[in-house]
Amino acid sequence: MRLATIRDGSPDGALALVSADGTRALRVGGNLLGAMEDWAATQARLAAAEARLEAGEGEPTDDVEFAAPMPRSWQWLDGSAFTTHGDLMAIAFNHDPLGNERPLMYQGLSDRFYGPADPVPFPAMEHGIDFEGEFGVVVDAVPMGTSAADALKHIRLIVQINDWSLRAIAPIEMKTGFGWVQAKPACSMAPFAVTPDELGEAWKDGRVGLDLIIDWNGREVGRANGAAMAFGFHELVAHAALTRDLVAGTVIGSGTVSNANYAEVGSSCISEIRAIEIIAHGAPQTPFLAFGDTVRMTAVGSTGRAPFGQIDQEVVKA
Amino acid sequence: MRLATIRDGSPDGALALVSADGTRALRVGGNLLGAMEDWAATQARLAAAEARLEAGEGEPTDDVEFAAPMPRSWQWLDGSAFTTHGDLMAIAFNHDPLGNERPLMYQGLSDRFYGPADPVPFPAMEHGIDFEGEFGVVVDAVPMGTSAADALKHIRLIVQINDWSLRAIAPIEMKTGFGWVQAKPACSMAPFAVTPDELGEAWKDGRVGLDLIIDWNGREVGRANGAAMAFGFHELVAHAALTRDLVAGTVIGSGTVSNANYAEVGSSCISEIRAIEIIAHGAPQTPFLAFGDTVRMTAVGSTGRAPFGQIDQEVVKA
Repeated sequence: MRLATIRDGSPDGALALVSADGTRALRVGGNLLGAMEDWAATQARLAAAEARLEAGEGEPTDDVEFAAPMPRSWQWLDGSAFTTHGDLMAIAFNHDPLGNERPLMYQGLSDRFYGPADPVPFPAMEHGIDFEGEFGVVVDAVPMGTSAADALKHIRLIVQINDWSLRAIAPIEMKTGFGWVQAKPACSMAPFAVTPDELGEAWKDGRVGLDLIIDWNGREVGRANGAAMAFGFHELVAHAALTRDLVAGTVIGSGTVSNANYAEVGSSCISEIRAIEIIAHGAPQTPFLAFGDTVRMTAVGSTGRAPFGQIDQEVVKA
Repeated sequence: MRLATIRDGSPDGALALVSADGTRALRVGGNLLGAMEDWAATQARLAAAEARLEAGEGEPTDDVEFAAPMPRSWQWLDGSAFTTHGDLMAIAFNHDPLGNERPLMYQGLSDRFYGPADPVPFPAMEHGIDFEGEFGVVVDAVPMGTSAADALKHIRLIVQINDWSLRAIAPIEMKTGFGWVQAKPACSMAPFAVTPDELGEAWKDGRVGLDLIIDWNGREVGRANGAAMAFGFHELVAHAALTRDLVAGTVIGSGTVSNANYAEVGSSCISEIRAIEIIAHGAPQTPFLAFGDTVRMTAVGSTGRAPFGQIDQEVVKA
């Protein structure tokens, strides 16, 4: 199943089920954040709605405006589970590699996720505006101390995220050990949150085996696959839940999708492109984003289908 | 004015105004998180309620159970604005001093703040359970790019916080630069959130000039004053708002209250006590918290009045 949130003027929007072909949406009542609190009841509601949607109910998706499937949540915890990304960022930021013994994770801004077509405002290009293509999962309530094996059952939805980052500020904040505040403004989400079964074979070992196509100003710069995570999402969930109950609706991110064969598949953020240039030429050549630039992100399987829909946004001056 | 949240079975509880002598509370409708979204309207409602409270309406505070004044929020950003705390933590964690050129800040768990008398569950004593006595502010919506001078006007309420910390995990997470997730579970709040004017002369330069008395198992270990912040709360708010709009209800913390004359006034966390022991004896002597330990925190002015009420909690096994 594919879920979406239709803008209706309320902060959390209207939860809707989207047809398999993506042409129609049926509002199922309530919003996604509330629906995460009782997933069994939500599943029953969705199953009933699915039958109605197949029977022709609903409205054309062309007639509605999609917000992020989760326009806001109580918690956003972002990992960094792609080893290649970590290695390249160590070069970009000129620090020692962080190692891979335990998951890397920080808590980020969750009171707002931009919708898939929203213009994204930043105060200054000098901050080094960058995109980061990621996958994420949405969990129902996860009790403190949940194991990785049990955590898998709490992963109810999978989402596609652009974790906007400010690279001129990031290393300054990182050096303090406190993590990022200024360097990590609000993220964006692709329009559809999907149940794990919707991904079929592409959902395996708590990983999303889809290529994440990144187009910057219409030019493809990346097509890395999500399967290469050093830790699966279930392990990230268990890591986060070691000392806290995870509130229903918590979103947990993979970190920037990145593959060891970046020479062939490219990168999901500009900072990696710059790190690769540092390796090759001793200095970065590609500038960060400019106001007016567009960033499109589309995860696709072998058939070319895009289960999450597409993020397609413009970077603008705040 | 002093505001509190009465437990009523809902996640956000019932917003109430508390009488000057603390004996009566009057429910004013709605909850504090919602009330932050339109502070002008909230002020009008509170002013009307104040007259009714003075006329004898309301219920005895002994008959109700207080949650945290903000039982959950969309955002909790904790600073570390006391230079002495930073210097002592560098000794405790054996890292270089972090410097004081810019505010230190991380984003923490905000989906739950424990109430003032709630038992606080932790999975393991081996994690090095510690308290951190702090002050915090609650802002209404702060637009991106707000200056420190303008930020002062957005500080609507002041709160008193215990930022529970796990010291065996904290330096491991800190070394990654990603900040703390496992090392920073949910915080606790004293029962009353107060308007700045309620503090009189003690609210000055965006700082809380009150002594924060810390009692551990009934023994006083700290009485540091909140005025010693290197950056005022307005500067912390402006720092946080550089690249993001701050959502109404954002809570911003001071970091552990700490004074240069710690030999006289003691400390607001065990880790500082241990750092002082390292300086004096080469090794820490005081253990971290044990299950069954109690922690009481009370901020008092020169008259002995405690505007925020008191945090009084027991550490328990999860």
